[in-house]
Amino acid sequence: MTRKILVLPGDGIGPEITAEASRILAACQARGLDVEVEEALVGGSAYDEHGEPLPAVTLDKAKAADAILLGAVGGPKWDKLEDLSKRPEKGLLGLRKNLGLFANLRPAITYPQLASASSLKPELVAGLDIMIVRELTGGIYFGQPRGIEARDGQRVGFNTYVYSESEIERIGRVAFELAQKRGKRLCSVDKANVLEVTILWREVMDRLAPEYPDVELSHMYVDNAAMQLVRAPKQFDVMVTGNMFGDILSDAAAMLTGSIGMLPSASLNESGQGMYEPCHGSAPDIAGQNMANPLATILSVAMMLRYSLGEPGFAQRIEGAVGKVLDDGLRTADIASEGTRTVSTRDMGDAVLTAF
Amino acid sequence: MTRKILVLPGDGIGPEITAEASRILAACQARGLDVEVEEALVGGSAYDEHGEPLPAVTLDKAKAADAILLGAVGGPKWDKLEDLSKRPEKGLLGLRKNLGLFANLRPAITYPQLASASSLKPELVAGLDIMIVRELTGGIYFGQPRGIEARDGQRVGFNTYVYSESEIERIGRVAFELAQKRGKRLCSVDKANVLEVTILWREVMDRLAPEYPDVELSHMYVDNAAMQLVRAPKQFDVMVTGNMFGDILSDAAAMLTGSIGMLPSASLNESGQGMYEPCHGSAPDIAGQNMANPLATILSVAMMLRYSLGEPGFAQRIEGAVGKVLDDGLRTADIASEGTRTVSTRDMGDAVLTAF
Ligand SMILES: CC(C)[C@H](C(=O)O)[C@@H](O)C(=O)O
Ligand SMILES: CC(C)[C@H](C(=O)O)[C@@H](O)C(=O)O
Repeated sequence: MTRKILVLPGDGIGPEITAEASRILAACQARGLDVEVEEALVGGSAYDEHGEPLPAVTLDKAKAADAILLGAVGGPKWDKLEDLSKRPEKGLLGLRKNLGLFANLRPAITYPQLASASSLKPELVAGLDIMIVRELTGGIYFGQPRGIEARDGQRVGFNTYVYSESEIERIGRVAFELAQKRGKRLCSVDKANVLEVTILWREVMDRLAPEYPDVELSHMYVDNAAMQLVRAPKQFDVMVTGNMFGDILSDAAAMLTGSIGMLPSASLNESGQGMYEPCHGSAPDIAGQNMANPLATILSVAMMLRYSLGEPGFAQRIEGAVGKVLDDGLRTADIASEGTRTVSTRDMGDAVLTAF
Repeated sequence: MTRKILVLPGDGIGPEITAEASRILAACQARGLDVEVEEALVGGSAYDEHGEPLPAVTLDKAKAADAILLGAVGGPKWDKLEDLSKRPEKGLLGLRKNLGLFANLRPAITYPQLASASSLKPELVAGLDIMIVRELTGGIYFGQPRGIEARDGQRVGFNTYVYSESEIERIGRVAFELAQKRGKRLCSVDKANVLEVTILWREVMDRLAPEYPDVELSHMYVDNAAMQLVRAPKQFDVMVTGNMFGDILSDAAAMLTGSIGMLPSASLNESGQGMYEPCHGSAPDIAGQNMANPLATILSVAMMLRYSLGEPGFAQRIEGAVGKVLDDGLRTADIASEGTRTVSTRDMGDAVLTAF
């Protein structure tokens, strides 16, 4: 049965990097991968065309797809939109919510070839391999009530940080299961010394633990987690946390690997349908200049093949090809260092295709 | 007029480190500083004695003081207390709220003698000097409604992230004024692409900007701020943000200096009354072992002398003495490195007194 893949280039460098990833997908098709690939608009580019960051036609295609590849959304062009519901980010948040993509997996891995690109001392990041599991369809991102309103003669802004037991349990199970397949250590991050919602979070994690006796569960306050990531990131195996803390910690973790231009991510729902995207953003400052790093997006294709399409063979071939071009010393500007050759987005895509 | 200082040792290493700081205060008194020093209980130690983390007698003394020196609160001993209102942290939060200490100033400075202690490459942190201004009496820490309750047959935890215009304006002015006295750059951190409360935050900061034409205001999303702190911390001068984001970012920033055992902080109210404490926590794992670093607490005394007591001369003398012992190669275990001499808490206090 032919599987459907929807490619959503998005904004900024999105179109350039997804173009390279699509070429890799085409190469997989040429070697027998049975998929059908379509494109649609999301984010600022969708707003410009349809007046909506997530047009109905895009959402319909997304629902019908087995997997989605997203570039990135957002940029200064749309930052001034007063109406938050029209912002590019709402396209992304709408996809997550409407498809129920509650489990965001963000690996923070240091590529051996790139350890020196980290701002941390090489010995602290060499061999680093953390998996951050972020809840993606709840928490303060979606909590009600929310808004800005007048109270006692002045305006007040408010949002609600809310989680139910079942939401916590669902993401907790994903994290425990991942930990079972990895180093068997799970660190749950909360702020249970201040926030009631995270007291419940901690309680549910503790309740799940006996069902996964081979996994060692620990708890850490979010401020300490931010410190420990900076101090000694290799102490972590799998981390699990809510939407907002996950946003902050996964970006910090990705950056400290020095490999942020290389890191893919997956957002999965209960039926295994997934959206795949690079960890980095839309980088509007370098958009259209053929200099963005397409490797995180290409590796997102590999992650998609593994997690949503059950094609580990193709995934491995892509990862192998990426490893080869790095070994050959090719680098886009973001990961360039002395003794390597700086290449363009397209050249990098060409090189991966050749090595594939 | 004799000024009153209240010392609150707290929990964990708190008593050891405030003991050294108190000796420095006594040395200042011996040289003519006209202050009266008292002690009281707060946090877990207060709970053990009075059943409350912030007993009325402590709060009364705190209100009557011109300045407060706090060690640290919290520890595993009290982590299992079901009732959040009895936890040690509530003592700290209660002091902040009752005294109106809305402005938390957290310098992240790399001591030249300690640059190699950072997990970041030395060139990225040498000379680092960031001031993080964190709002301390509002935001999600204090927002109502909050709690855990049953809804539709399951429990739900919730907290409210809320700021009014006047709260934002008040902390914004503190940050702009600090920026004027420093490098004239202010970065306001929010999540205005997702959270309404921070849209209002950004709007108020923008509205204040024309009143401080010599300060360059920028905005950054919190996830990006966490990344930029790791990538290139020296790009920042003053940062201003809400209570929760400030908790996370200030700890990350403190850790990346490599000097976290050295960093003081101030929490000020509108009348200049202040509470001073080290950035680090109560470190229960090393409590009672005479090995904690007392320098952040000693430097908190210096900060107190400067900001609340108008005694820059004494402040400078203390800072000079601390610089001298570092130059002499004395280090507590947390900041020890090759070629330096590891000393105890008490020895470090002795050395500062001698150099004073
Ligand atoms: C673009 C933004 C809404 C989004 C988020 O905050 O989730 C991004 O930062 C991410 O982490 O995917
Ligand atoms: C102990 C805790 C309540 C406190 C906070 O979260 O504010 C601490 O982390 C701090 O930053 O002073």
